[in-house]
Amino acid sequence: MPVLVMKFGGTSVATLDRIRRAAKRVAVEVSKGYDVIVIVSAMSGKTNELVGWVNETSPFYDAREYDAVVSSGENVTAGLMALTLQEMEVPARSWQGWQVPLLTTSAHGAARIEDIPPANIMQKFGEGMRVAVVAGFQGISPEGRITTLGRGGSDTTAVAFAAAFEAERCDIYTDVDGVYTTDPRVCAKARKLDRIAFEEMLELASLGAKVLQTRSVELAMRYNVKLRVLSSFEEPSDEAGTLVCGEDQIMESNIVSGVAFSREEAKVTLVTIADQPGIAAAIFGTLAEAGVNVDMIVQNVSETDYQGHEGRVTDMTFSCPTDQLKRAEKALEAARDAGRLKFDQLWAETDVAKVSVVGIGMRSHAGVAAKMFETLAAENINIKVIATSEIKISVLIERKYLELAVQALHDAFELERA
Amino acid sequence: MPVLVMKFGGTSVATLDRIRRAAKRVAVEVSKGYDVIVIVSAMSGKTNELVGWVNETSPFYDAREYDAVVSSGENVTAGLMALTLQEMEVPARSWQGWQVPLLTTSAHGAARIEDIPPANIMQKFGEGMRVAVVAGFQGISPEGRITTLGRGGSDTTAVAFAAAFEAERCDIYTDVDGVYTTDPRVCAKARKLDRIAFEEMLELASLGAKVLQTRSVELAMRYNVKLRVLSSFEEPSDEAGTLVCGEDQIMESNIVSGVAFSREEAKVTLVTIADQPGIAAAIFGTLAEAGVNVDMIVQNVSETDYQGHEGRVTDMTFSCPTDQLKRAEKALEAARDAGRLKFDQLWAETDVAKVSVVGIGMRSHAGVAAKMFETLAAENINIKVIATSEIKISVLIERKYLELAVQALHDAFELERA
Repeated sequence: MPVLVMKFGGTSVATLDRIRRAAKRVAVEVSKGYDVIVIVSAMSGKTNELVGWVNETSPFYDAREYDAVVSSGENVTAGLMALTLQEMEVPARSWQGWQVPLLTTSAHGAARIEDIPPANIMQKFGEGMRVAVVAGFQGISPEGRITTLGRGGSDTTAVAFAAAFEAERCDIYTDVDGVYTTDPRVCAKARKLDRIAFEEMLELASLGAKVLQTRSVELAMRYNVKLRVLSSFEEPSDEAGTLVCGEDQIMESNIVSGVAFSREEAKVTLVTIADQPGIAAAIFGTLAEAGVNVDMIVQNVSETDYQGHEGRVTDMTFSCPTDQLKRAEKALEAARDAGRLKFDQLWAETDVAKVSVVGIGMRSHAGVAAKMFETLAAENINIKVIATSEIKISVLIERKYLELAVQALHDAFELERA
Repeated sequence: MPVLVMKFGGTSVATLDRIRRAAKRVAVEVSKGYDVIVIVSAMSGKTNELVGWVNETSPFYDAREYDAVVSSGENVTAGLMALTLQEMEVPARSWQGWQVPLLTTSAHGAARIEDIPPANIMQKFGEGMRVAVVAGFQGISPEGRITTLGRGGSDTTAVAFAAAFEAERCDIYTDVDGVYTTDPRVCAKARKLDRIAFEEMLELASLGAKVLQTRSVELAMRYNVKLRVLSSFEEPSDEAGTLVCGEDQIMESNIVSGVAFSREEAKVTLVTIADQPGIAAAIFGTLAEAGVNVDMIVQNVSETDYQGHEGRVTDMTFSCPTDQLKRAEKALEAARDAGRLKFDQLWAETDVAKVSVVGIGMRSHAGVAAKMFETLAAENINIKVIATSEIKISVLIERKYLELAVQALHDAFELERA
C-alpha cells in the first residue's frame, strides 16, 4: 500500500480533543488505502516545561541529559495518538526514535539524521498495522543515547521519513492554512498559493515566512519529497493547503510567486576605508567571528584621493538582524582599535526593512528588477541597498514604507490572481 | 568499588529542590567510595496525570501504549537527577530501562523482571562514571517494547538491581523513617526497629504495613539483598531507618517483633452446610472465581444429625476485605441458587478487625499464642477467629477493640524495649 506521512505540530496535539481531531484526519487517509506514518510533537507547552526544568537544574547542562529529558514530551503524545487511533478501530502503534530506529549523529541537541532503516515499521505494516505514530524530534546516537534534532526537528523528521519510506506525500499540519503570496496581515489581497517550488519556499522560509523550517525544505528538495502544508483547524479537502514540490510539477507559474519581508534589519556603512585586496575578508571575517549573520553586502564608490585620503578608498555597506547590531559595532571597532581595520566612520541605521520578490519565473523573464524599482519609485520609496539572486530581488528601504511597498509590489506583480 | 543501590520514591523527587536534596545524599555515598545506582520514580503527581490522559483517551487501553506513555515520567526524573549530580561534580548519567537493558516479560502493565545484564553500566563505572541514575518501574520486552512493572515496581526495580550488581545494600528512601513495632498512630509506645527479618517484613507488608511492597521483599529475601528503609526527609546517619535482612544478621531478636493490624476485614459464616468431601473446594473455588481474596479460614463444629439435618453438617467461617464482601455474598448465593452449594444461612459481620503478632522468635519459643489470648482475655476482648503460621498469630476481634488490643499486646510482649 502507498505510504503517506502526516506531521502534527504542538498546537495540533495540545489537548486530548485536538489529538482526537488529528486522529480523525489520519483515519480518513487510512480509509483511502494509505499506510500512514504520523509524526507528532509534544503537546504545546510541555517541551517548554521540560526545558525550564533542565535550565533551572543545570544552566550549562549536559546535552545528553537534556535530550533524555526533553524527548519525553513527544513520547507521551505518540502513545496517546496511538491509543486514540485504536479507539477508532485503526490498527496503530507508537514508535520512539530508538525503536524505529532513527539513527542520528552524536551532536546532542542538534543531531543530524543519518539513516532511517524502514524494515521494522514496514514489517508491522505487513502484519496489518495501518498507522505508525512516531515521536518526532528525536533519534538515537551511535552510542545508544537519545538525541534530539534541534530547531525545526519535527518537520525534518517528517520529511526524512517520507524520503526513507518513499511516501507519496508528506503533509505538515500546522496552525496556518498554507503558504501565501505575502503576509495577509500586511496585505489584505494576499492569496494562498496552491503550489510553490522548493527553491521559492527556501527563499521565503529564510526571508522570514515561518511556515516551514528551512532544513526540512532543503531535505524535501534533495529527495524530491512532495510536501503539503495545511491547517489542522480547517475542514480537510484535496485542495487544502499548499503543495511544495519540484518545478516540474508546477505547470504554469507566475513570474513572481510572493513578496517576502523582514522588519528586523539593521544597515551598517563603514565610511572611507582603504580599498585594498583582502579588506572585505577582514571586515566579514571579523563579523563572522563575532557571530553576526550578515545578509546583504554592497560595496559603494571607489575613488582615488577621496576627501584628502591617499590611495584608493571605498565605502562598505551591509545588513544584519537588528539584535546583532551592537555586537557588529563592537567587533568592528575593536578590530579598528587593534589596527586590523581602517575606516573613518561607522554609520548604523536601525529603521530599515527588507522587501523581496521571489519567483522561479525570474530565471526566464527579464525586467522583474526594473518593474520592482519603478513600482517603489512611483510610491516615492527610496531604495538603500539592492541584492539579487537567481530567483529573488531584495531591497532595503525605510521601515515606515514597508506596508506600502509590500502592497504596491503585490499589486504590480498581480499576485492576487492565480 | 563496592556498589550501592539507592531508591527515591515520588515524594522524594517531587520538586527540583527535593531532587537536589536526594542528590546530596547520593553524593555523600559516592564520597565514601561507593559506585551508586540510583532508582527514581516519577515526580509525584506526574504518573497520575499520564494515567489520567490514557484513561480518558481509551478506557480499555492497549497496555503497550499505556506503558509507552506512563514510563515517560520516570525518564524525566532520571535525566534531571543526573544533571543535578553533574552540577555537584559527581560523574553521572541517566539510563532508561531499555538502555540498561532491564529485560522483562511481555506482560505490559505488570511485567516481571527476567534479567538485568550488568555489563553496560559496569563498563561506564569502569570509565569513571560514579552514579547510574535509572528510571524505575520500566523495562523492555522481548519484542523491544517498553514495559512497566506494575504496583510496587520501583521498589522491585531497586532490589533487582541490587541483586544483579551484588550491591552491598539497597537503600529505599521514602516518607517514613523505618519499620515500627506497630503503627505509632495507634500505639504511642511504638518503636522503630533497627533490624527486621525478611520473613517478618513479608508478614507485616501483607498485613497492611505499607512501607515496602511485598514483591520487593520477596525478591530481596531470595537474593539475600540487604534492604534499608529510611526517610528522605530526615538527616542521614548510619543508624537511620530499618535494615531488612536475613535472620542470620539479627543477633538477638525479641520473640515478637511487631503487632500488625488491618481494619478493613469482614467475617462471613456459612451455617449448616453439608460436610462432604470437596465442599471446601466448592466454596473457595466459587470465591476465587469471583475475585474475592479470602484470608483466614476456619471450619467449625462437625456433627451428625445437627438440628434435624441428615448426614454430617458443619459451619464454615472466613474473612475477606470489607470492600469485597458484597461480591462474596453474591457469588455464594448464586452458587446456592444454582445447586452447586447447600447452606442454610449466610452470616456476615463487617465490624471486625484483624490483629496479628509477628516474630521469627516464635519458631523457637512456645507460649506466644497462649500469652496473646490471655492478654486479650484480660481486656475482655472476645476472639472470633484464630489463624496461625510459623511466625505469626492472627485473630479477628470486634473492630471497636482494635486500639485496645494493639496497645495491650505491644505492652505484653514488651515491644517498646529493644
